[in-house]
Order: sequence, then C-alpha cells, then structure tokens
Amino acid sequence: MIKEKLRFNIRDIPEYVPGRTVDEIKRRYNLDRVVKLASNENPYGTSERVYEVLKNFRDFHVYPKLNEDLIEKLSDYVGFEPERIVISAGSDGIIENAFKLFVDPGDEVVIPIPTFSYYHTVATVYGARVLNVKRCEDYRIDVDSIIGAVSEKTKIVMICSPNNPTGNSEVYEDVREIVESVDCLVFVDEAYAEFSSDVLIDLADYENVIVSRTFSKAFGLANMRIGYGVMDKDLVKEYKKVDLPFPVSSIAMLCALAVLEDLDFVRSCVDKIVEERERLYRELLKRGLKTYPSQANFLFFKSPIRSRYFVEEMAKRGVILRDCSNFIGCDDFSVRVSIGKRDENDFFLNALDDFLDDLKY
Amino acid sequence: MIKEKLRFNIRDIPEYVPGRTVDEIKRRYNLDRVVKLASNENPYGTSERVYEVLKNFRDFHVYPKLNEDLIEKLSDYVGFEPERIVISAGSDGIIENAFKLFVDPGDEVVIPIPTFSYYHTVATVYGARVLNVKRCEDYRIDVDSIIGAVSEKTKIVMICSPNNPTGNSEVYEDVREIVESVDCLVFVDEAYAEFSSDVLIDLADYENVIVSRTFSKAFGLANMRIGYGVMDKDLVKEYKKVDLPFPVSSIAMLCALAVLEDLDFVRSCVDKIVEERERLYRELLKRGLKTYPSQANFLFFKSPIRSRYFVEEMAKRGVILRDCSNFIGCDDFSVRVSIGKRDENDFFLNALDDFLDDLKY
Repeated sequence: MIKEKLRFNIRDIPEYVPGRTVDEIKRRYNLDRVVKLASNENPYGTSERVYEVLKNFRDFHVYPKLNEDLIEKLSDYVGFEPERIVISAGSDGIIENAFKLFVDPGDEVVIPIPTFSYYHTVATVYGARVLNVKRCEDYRIDVDSIIGAVSEKTKIVMICSPNNPTGNSEVYEDVREIVESVDCLVFVDEAYAEFSSDVLIDLADYENVIVSRTFSKAFGLANMRIGYGVMDKDLVKEYKKVDLPFPVSSIAMLCALAVLEDLDFVRSCVDKIVEERERLYRELLKRGLKTYPSQANFLFFKSPIRSRYFVEEMAKRGVILRDCSNFIGCDDFSVRVSIGKRDENDFFLNALDDFLDDLKY
Repeated sequence: MIKEKLRFNIRDIPEYVPGRTVDEIKRRYNLDRVVKLASNENPYGTSERVYEVLKNFRDFHVYPKLNEDLIEKLSDYVGFEPERIVISAGSDGIIENAFKLFVDPGDEVVIPIPTFSYYHTVATVYGARVLNVKRCEDYRIDVDSIIGAVSEKTKIVMICSPNNPTGNSEVYEDVREIVESVDCLVFVDEAYAEFSSDVLIDLADYENVIVSRTFSKAFGLANMRIGYGVMDKDLVKEYKKVDLPFPVSSIAMLCALAVLEDLDFVRSCVDKIVEERERLYRELLKRGLKTYPSQANFLFFKSPIRSRYFVEEMAKRGVILRDCSNFIGCDDFSVRVSIGKRDENDFFLNALDDFLDDLKY
C-alpha cells in the first residue's frame, strides 16, 4: 500500500477542510442573505483599474516573466531596492520557500501562539520540531520566552504582525531585540500591515530577516494569489533557487501593478475598514464580550458559549465567522470576525443581538 | 551570517537563470523579427472563449474556491472520477507535492536521464539522493535498469512521457511493468500527452501512481499556471494536506474550463502542430542533423557545433532555441526546438540554412 510509504509527519497534518461558502449556508439554513466575515477579504473589492488590465490581456499561452514595472513600483512603495524584492503566490509561497531554504527534518522552529495556523502546517510538512511559545496576556509576543526558546537547532522564528487571529501588532523594538539576539532567520509576516499603525518592514535591513507582504488583503486581490517578500540581496539569489520556475501569472502581476498605481483606492479602503473596526470593537465591548484591540482588518473576541457552537448559531442567522478554537494556543471560546462594509457589520451585530437575546431564555 | 544557516543541499542547486526573451534578443542583435521556439508554448494562443470569461470576472478580492464544474469537465476528459482529480499550479505543483508526501532527506528518487531538469531541482530541494538511470539509444526508458535501481530507500520513480527534451513517448506496458514491480510511487508526467499517440493516464488506476497533466501546452494556458493530477482517492486526501491553501486562482480555473469546453480548438492546434512537427523532422534529417522522432510539440536534435554556440548563432539569426547541454544526461550537442506556426518554422529553417552555409566556409 502506497499510503504506508507516506512520510511519517504527513500523518500529523489534519485533513484539509475547506471553509464554508455563502451559498452553502444559504442552502443549509434556507436564508436570503448570508454575509461572510471569515476570510479577512477586502469588502470593497479591488481597484477599477484591474478590470481595464484584463480587457487587453492576450498572452495566456506564454509563460510569465517577472514584471519589472511591478518590482519598481513595489520598490517605491516599500522603500527597498528592487533587487531585494521577490514576488510569490501569496505570502504562503514566501513562507514555504523560507522553510525550503532553512529547515531540515528535526530542525526547530519557534512559533508564538496563537497565530496563523498555516505556520504549523508548513512546519510539519518540512519535518520541523515546533516550539510553541505562549504570548503575553494582551497577545503581544513574549520577547524573553522567544529568545529563551531559540537554540542552536532553531532555524526560523515566525512573527506575524498584525497577528492573525488576535489582531495586535508587535512593537518594532521587541522584534528587533529578537532579530539581534538570535542566530537564525526571523520571518516577519506582515500580511495585514496596511491596517496597522506599527509596521516592521524596516527590519528587512537585517540580513537574517525576511518580511512578507500580500496583495490579498488591503489591495483586494485575494483571488490572484500574489504576495511579495523583502530580504537581503544575497538571500534573494538563494530564494530563487527553491522557488517554482513560474510562481505567478502575468495577469496577477498586472493586477497588482494596477492597484499599486491606485493607492488612493487602497487608502480609502483602509480608512473605512479602520473606522468600522473601531466602531465594531466598541459595539462588541458594549455587549459585554471580551474583545481585543486590533491593528488588522478583523477583530478577535471571546464568545459567550463555546465558539464551535457560537459560530454555528451565527451561521444560522446568516453570518459566517471564523471559529479559532482549533488554532494552537486558542481556548474554546475564540472567534475572529472580519471587518465588512458598514451594513455587513450591522447585519452581524443584529445577528449577534438576536443570538444574545435567545441566550437569555 | 544567515547564508551559513542555509540547508546544505541548497548549495547544490544552480543559480536560477531566466530564459531569454524575444525583446532581449531583438535589442542585443538589433533584429526586427525574433521567433521564440524555446518554451514549448502553443503558437496558436488559446481559445477565444477565454477572453469572454475574463470580461465578466469580478471576484478578485475573494479567496478562490475549487471550481466543481472544472473538475466535472476534467473527469469527462480524462475518464476518471472527480474525487480522483486535483488541481494545481501547473504540473510543477503536482510534482512538488508528490515530493512533500513521500521524500525525506536521504531517501532515493530514480530519474531516467535525460529528462525535464526540474525533477532534479525538486529532488535536491527535498534532500533526495538521485539515482540517474540512462535511457536506451532511442531515449526510451530502460525498464530493467530502472527496476534494478529501485531499492527499499526509493520513494519515487519519475517518468516523463512524452519525455522532455527528447520527445519520445514511453510504451504503456513498459511503464506498467515498473509500476507492478516496485513498491514506491511512480510519478508519470504527461504534460505533452495531447501531442502523443501513446498515453499512460490509465496507469492512474494503480494505487502507487500519480499522473500529472497541464493546461500549459496544448490548451495554451502557460501563463495561468494550472495543471492537474490523477491519483488514488485515498491519496487525494493526503495530497490536499500538503498543498497550498489556495493553489490556483478562480480566473485560472475559469480559463481552463473555457478551453475544456472548446476541445475543437485544442484538437485543431494539436493537428497543425503534429503536421508541422513531422515536416520539421523530415527537414532536419534532410539537412543531415541527427533528429529524434517526437510525440510532443518539440523536436530534439544534435547540433553540428556545441549546442551552447549553436543556440547563440541561431539567436543572432532571430531564433531562440533551448540549449539542452546542461540537462543531466545530455551531451554537448543537444538542442530542443518547439514547433511553431508554419511560417515560424520556415523562419527557423531559413536561419538554420544560413548558419549551415556559413559553417561551410
């Protein structure tokens, strides 16, 4: 049996379960309106310029080549030289390539928990021994514990800022202290940077840092699977060795370029989302739910009943949320809600009020 | 220095050098017309239906979900149940995921050479020990040598059919003999299957076989990065564990579906390419060049001077070819030419005649 030949660690990876869609929930609960606030997507779509780009695209049959204009624009946007920027299939591609570069089976990876669960999946695929380090009460990283957990066998420290699913950003000096104290790669995942007042990208000036960003969130291009990384020039050469030969389609690169040329669109989305985030934060607190301040396009809060059941109750009422109880380091009452448009957030609050009312009886 | 922390095998991967583009060669040699016959792309582009699909696409900001219609259509096309089909970023994604599933550092992988060089890159990234097995004189696999090379430590036997860069297909019974004799995965890469009179996909009924296909060649969607794999139903579950969370964009899946609904387009491209392939084969033989029969959309031949120099001489004359001398198992006179449109192939033959004339003096 070929299954007996699978690598041992594959058994440790939970089976893949795709998230539920609006249509599924509509059908299941016979609902007219379902709002999905589970994937931290941009509720305002993407820049109109993207549609224009596609109208004229004809090179479907030709292998993609790196779009130099995109790299130039990104260089302006992030303030790093073009030679230090790589393009990839979402942040996920950058993360996976970092593991390919540094992690042999048995090597250690330090992950502050709770955080984006994909880090654990990739670590398991690459046979890493994961050291989970608990965060502080407010979910900021515990610098001393992280430095203490790093050993000679540690190859990567994963930092997610703003952190998914808890929403808090890390303090620049905290992460810098880690970067300067350790002798391994510090991977900084800034997928949600645009929504945060604290950004860490300048740490990419350290030769042991890779910072990843994505076009999936503030730029509204989740479908196109495109992100980027900033790192030391020498490391870029090594990175390209382990990357797929053609990681990203020309269309995805053209779309990303179109949105970069329309930063007003991005800024206006971010402004609206941040405003709604703060409103929703206050509304959740008002309802007595323990809710955490967020620097991202989502909020993390504790549900009054186990989140598994809470998320199902909310789905019945037309709102898809993310149950985070299966994130390592989360308790059984952990929920993440993406910030939607104002009326979507109101729809969520109404559904929540309905649930809370029912709970009283 | 972080570079000292890189995995040892990363040093063994040659630095990535992107292929040369038409524009580069035009500039370099001050040419009006340059024809690229180096990447085995579809010279007829893709189905017109693809353009229609994109006009109405609006879901840029939403994470992709698996397109069930595409899976259904593929199921009809290949004759396997939908549950046995996975979609991936080109064949490359399927190949890499097979390594993630089965190969730990130190494990062995058997590769008949010469073949698609990406197998060697992936094998090195995953720390495999590669056993290169020479092909027969006509480049067909040597069944006994392959079976002889397989040991307890072997995790994958790579079969490419039609083989890149030599163009020959394997005989079904030969590969079946391997599949039945070994106790490991046999990976069958059928990227060029549409151009071949022999196909191996029915071998996917063996539980130790994965067959990969791509939309990059006959379907004319190289830019979209989409391919698929067929395997045992149980293996699909394991496969999805190690795959990227969102391997392919909705646009790519919609494009693939559009071409699958226009198989007449694919068949007409294949017919024209096969006809031109046979013509070019005769023309190359006429010129005294050792050329191999091909079942793919390219021809493999031996250049009269070292291929490094030959390819450069042809570039000067406006034709970009693939020098295969750096493929493991190829000699220094190995060239691959993609089949273009009739006038592109004539342009190639004229350039070749010009070179051969110059060679006489």
